[in-house]
Amino acid sequence: MSRPVQVTVLGGGSWGTTVASLAAGNTPTLLWARSADTAREINEQHTNSRYLEDRALTPSLRATSDLREAAEHADVLVVGTPSHSIRDVLAEAAPHVRPWVPVLSLAKGLEAGTRLRPTQIIGETLPGHPVGLLAGPNLAREVLDGKAAAAVVALPDAATACALQPLFAAHLFRVYRNEDLLGSELGGVLKNIIAIAAGMAEGLGVGDNTRAMVLTRGLSEITRLGVAMGAQERTFAGLTGLGDLMATCMSPLSRNRRVGEALARDKTLEEITAEMGQVAEGVKTARTVVELAREHDVRMPIAEEVDAVVNDGRHPREAYRGLRRAAAEHEYHEVA
Amino acid sequence: MSRPVQVTVLGGGSWGTTVASLAAGNTPTLLWARSADTAREINEQHTNSRYLEDRALTPSLRATSDLREAAEHADVLVVGTPSHSIRDVLAEAAPHVRPWVPVLSLAKGLEAGTRLRPTQIIGETLPGHPVGLLAGPNLAREVLDGKAAAAVVALPDAATACALQPLFAAHLFRVYRNEDLLGSELGGVLKNIIAIAAGMAEGLGVGDNTRAMVLTRGLSEITRLGVAMGAQERTFAGLTGLGDLMATCMSPLSRNRRVGEALARDKTLEEITAEMGQVAEGVKTARTVVELAREHDVRMPIAEEVDAVVNDGRHPREAYRGLRRAAAEHEYHEVA
Repeated sequence: MSRPVQVTVLGGGSWGTTVASLAAGNTPTLLWARSADTAREINEQHTNSRYLEDRALTPSLRATSDLREAAEHADVLVVGTPSHSIRDVLAEAAPHVRPWVPVLSLAKGLEAGTRLRPTQIIGETLPGHPVGLLAGPNLAREVLDGKAAAAVVALPDAATACALQPLFAAHLFRVYRNEDLLGSELGGVLKNIIAIAAGMAEGLGVGDNTRAMVLTRGLSEITRLGVAMGAQERTFAGLTGLGDLMATCMSPLSRNRRVGEALARDKTLEEITAEMGQVAEGVKTARTVVELAREHDVRMPIAEEVDAVVNDGRHPREAYRGLRRAAAEHEYHEVA
Repeated sequence: MSRPVQVTVLGGGSWGTTVASLAAGNTPTLLWARSADTAREINEQHTNSRYLEDRALTPSLRATSDLREAAEHADVLVVGTPSHSIRDVLAEAAPHVRPWVPVLSLAKGLEAGTRLRPTQIIGETLPGHPVGLLAGPNLAREVLDGKAAAAVVALPDAATACALQPLFAAHLFRVYRNEDLLGSELGGVLKNIIAIAAGMAEGLGVGDNTRAMVLTRGLSEITRLGVAMGAQERTFAGLTGLGDLMATCMSPLSRNRRVGEALARDKTLEEITAEMGQVAEGVKTARTVVELAREHDVRMPIAEEVDAVVNDGRHPREAYRGLRRAAAEHEYHEVA
């Protein structure tokens, strides 16, 4: 029997810890946490109370705060650090990562300034490694609580994707695969802006019709941009597109949705950011997405209004009026 | 100036009345209601209290219980009767309908026995007329209450669709168009089965992840069947597919969702039907859809489990276990 595949997960936040706990149910898994206290708690008490309260992690999951140890352990490397720290963490880990090791990103966001997607940053810092994504409509707490969920391994090489699928699957956690890494990754970035719009709609007190319309038209415009950038249309109807969009827009836990709701209820972005302790991802990327849309000549009326609200101080009520002024045309070909 | 286009809507239920009220805001509109009392109430009090409580209809909307008068008035005929009575009502109206008049269906369902879609029944009873659909994520009460919503005129001929769009649009009601009548109509039929599955999930107490997974995988399987039957894939990501599916699955008012919830809470189908006063559309079509899936060699695990629950007495808890046994494979190509 061959040696089992060893998984290393970088990042002891809520989702990194959850993915590590899932993998530990299948194969030897080591989690790197920046905090030595967190690593010790995981090893001794099998909990990560800072992010996941008293939820029980798989007992065989081991943790370390030694990045070199973590990198050397990896036959498969999962990158679960926040998108703004990927570059630095991987630069430090890179000398200790074995050749050929596939790298899966859990991050959602675009690098400030460069506009690079997380897997592009990984490609720059770990050149030559197969790079993919593990993504989908996943709230860490629900997965650990045993609620059924599904995710996708998105990786251009189908054989590698097939080999990785079973490492993360569990009884109530199904892992699909697809080859459209670009579309899957863009879905996770772009959905945050639609989630802000959905939150604005909630805050203004709309009905089920309007909510369905915002999500459907929102999905339509992020699909248009994704396709213009080279992604496959159907990816946006899947778990990393529609699935993630729905979970984000429907969950009261979603930061981006909460930002939209609070803005509609007359709070300022400064107040909201202060309360949440961090800037929601969709706030950071709204302007970049609108720029990308212009460059690719794609009309994105919802993203434009969200950008106007978060960056130019427009009120969500005004933004909704703006959206309604646009003429309804063909369902798939909005005129620029 | 040319004579305005006269619209006739057949059917004084909640959605027929709502569409007639929208059209009356744009052009002379006559509503046919089977009940003379309903017609009188609409003419005199501008309400339809049986279906829409005290909501105010457009004052210029006229109503009649004379089918011949209604048919003769029509430059555009909207069919808003329940799907099981379309054939009889149109057979009676047909001798009085002028040539070339476009006919738009509002119905969702398949004819028992023949499995025909509403627009196919219209094509048989009014041969030679352009036939289309007005559909989307629309709850009648929300539209009349002025909550923003959107719909689609689906009709193979783009010029006719363009001419019809403005007849039904209103300040908060956007009307798009597309050419994929088959896909748009199938979306409305197939979504009811996924709504039952979503209701079952609610009744069993799932999380936001699971809800997003059921809707996303459900959309994926109805898309596969639709494409196998000749529809366009992207239609299912639009307002008549995803949009309608979301509104139906999220709204506590949806009959199909309520059936699923009640089944999960140990009620029998007989008790549920007795309480609701009618059989939900998804219950009627579940077996037919499973048969269609087999004929087209399409795997539909969610529809199969819903069929087993409503037709073979399986408990939703068992059905969910069944779904989880199936192996997760490629996101778009489930193995039969």
